[in-house]
Amino acid sequence: MARTGRRPGQTQTREDILAAARDQFAERGYGGATIRGIAAAAGVNPALVHHFFGSKDQVFVAALNLPFNPSVLVDTLLEGPRDRIGERVLRLFLGLWRRQETRAPFLALLRSVSNSPEVAAQMRTFMETAVLSRIAAALELPTLRLTAAASQMMGLAMVRYVLAAEPMASATDDEVVALVAPVIQRYFDP
Amino acid sequence: MARTGRRPGQTQTREDILAAARDQFAERGYGGATIRGIAAAAGVNPALVHHFFGSKDQVFVAALNLPFNPSVLVDTLLEGPRDRIGERVLRLFLGLWRRQETRAPFLALLRSVSNSPEVAAQMRTFMETAVLSRIAAALELPTLRLTAAASQMMGLAMVRYVLAAEPMASATDDEVVALVAPVIQRYFDP
Repeated sequence: MARTGRRPGQTQTREDILAAARDQFAERGYGGATIRGIAAAAGVNPALVHHFFGSKDQVFVAALNLPFNPSVLVDTLLEGPRDRIGERVLRLFLGLWRRQETRAPFLALLRSVSNSPEVAAQMRTFMETAVLSRIAAALELPTLRLTAAASQMMGLAMVRYVLAAEPMASATDDEVVALVAPVIQRYFDP
Repeated sequence: MARTGRRPGQTQTREDILAAARDQFAERGYGGATIRGIAAAAGVNPALVHHFFGSKDQVFVAALNLPFNPSVLVDTLLEGPRDRIGERVLRLFLGLWRRQETRAPFLALLRSVSNSPEVAAQMRTFMETAVLSRIAAALELPTLRLTAAASQMMGLAMVRYVLAAEPMASATDDEVVALVAPVIQRYFDP
């Protein structure tokens, strides 16, 4: 058994919370689920959920085994010069897809979004409330532009990694950045 | 039974050819399958396959129930002014997604590409050899740019129709064109 630094009881409690969270998100969607409801379903105190995970979006990220935490995305967007947001976001995204440990859950996510209206609905409200609205507020941008930028990145993942259509599949990250980053930047320039 | 204008024997032969084509594309991929091999598997003369469908890419479109024929896409790209390619292609694409009879097979295609490496491989070689290389030759463009344009359209479909993330899902076609067409156009301007 791998040494995790957690006591067995803690690990079990954490897993119980995640299982309850998956149920709650599936039943109520991201918008309807609450930390309080997840804690009740897991039979623990809400403070313990906060202790293990922090906020609701972090519970969501852990429960669905999402390949990234949107807080990291928001930080990456906001740090550094605004006229290079496109390149920063794209390099972060390409890096996540290059590493096997984040690539596999990304692929699983694309599959489940395409196959399950429930998962699609959860992801939709998660993106809307936990990711896009935060970035839109911080950058004072219409969210329509952010969904367009997200669509370019999602489609790039489909063509480069899922379809693996050439020559996009074999292009270097630098070649992809040179071609696509200005496009993403454009969506961030009002 | 619906009146199709075809005699029953013809309809059966056509279905036999399509079933053989699906087998051949699944076994050999788009690149490896041939009209001759499909005809042999269906027990008909290759001339009959040409008679019913025309070229190999048209057999592929029919066998996989694809929502568009790439010939239409190529025609749309090449007719009209080059500096409005982005808008023409995008309006064609949005129109296909708006109509239920093309939207359903588009969705099915996105799902099967995400779920089956075999379907992804067939689609990949089909896109590379039957769609992108033709357009690249006609417009004298690097195919990397075309795959980037295709990625923007595929991602737009994911966010607008599969995820249905707001406000992209409820935006009018005109709003989407105003925001995204210049981006697609950029990929077509070397």
